[in-house]
Amino acid sequence: MSDPVAPAFAPLPEPPYYAVIFASLRTPSDDTGYAAMAERMVLLGAQQPGFLGIDSARGADGFGITVSYWASLDAISAWRAHAEHTVARETGRDQWYRQYTLRIAKVERAYGFEA
Amino acid sequence: MSDPVAPAFAPLPEPPYYAVIFASLRTPSDDTGYAAMAERMVLLGAQQPGFLGIDSARGADGFGITVSYWASLDAISAWRAHAEHTVARETGRDQWYRQYTLRIAKVERAYGFEA
Repeated sequence: MSDPVAPAFAPLPEPPYYAVIFASLRTPSDDTGYAAMAERMVLLGAQQPGFLGIDSARGADGFGITVSYWASLDAISAWRAHAEHTVARETGRDQWYRQYTLRIAKVERAYGFEA
Repeated sequence: MSDPVAPAFAPLPEPPYYAVIFASLRTPSDDTGYAAMAERMVLLGAQQPGFLGIDSARGADGFGITVSYWASLDAISAWRAHAEHTVARETGRDQWYRQYTLRIAKVERAYGFEA
């Protein structure tokens, strides 16, 4: 592994808050369209009320996990109802994702380590 | 992206249950030792009482997310106290991880999609 430029971790606010855990397997199709949508959703999501942060990783096998953090369930519902997010979600099911799971969880404890 | 052999997703039991969300940035060192430990921890963790499943992804930049699912907080505590897991965790801080965050969260809702 080469020495990477350190990616930013989502911040660690004091619990409780909420996590949306999205695990997904990409189809092999439309990498360009997918990448543009993913970047747009991160930018747009970060502007929503109650957004606290996001962590995301995807391996070469196409399996990825994105966890976004939110101040409340209402904030998650509002983001879910956002028009542009709704279109992205529908296109995701039609084209970009072979399979996904989504879980909503209440963060009760959180800590970090830095070498 | 090539057409991958589909990785297994963690199952979707009925909530509530618990998630341990582990986001980490690898150091550039000891890929072989790290891979052996990671594989051993997945096998050993899966044998623990209350283990429900695991999802894991790491990108080429060294940033990864592993989410393991557990029936109770007690099950998480028992796995945390496991001797071999404790050694792995200490070696992780000494050698393998530049930075990590760990969150414990109660899963309240969960669903899946398959194309």
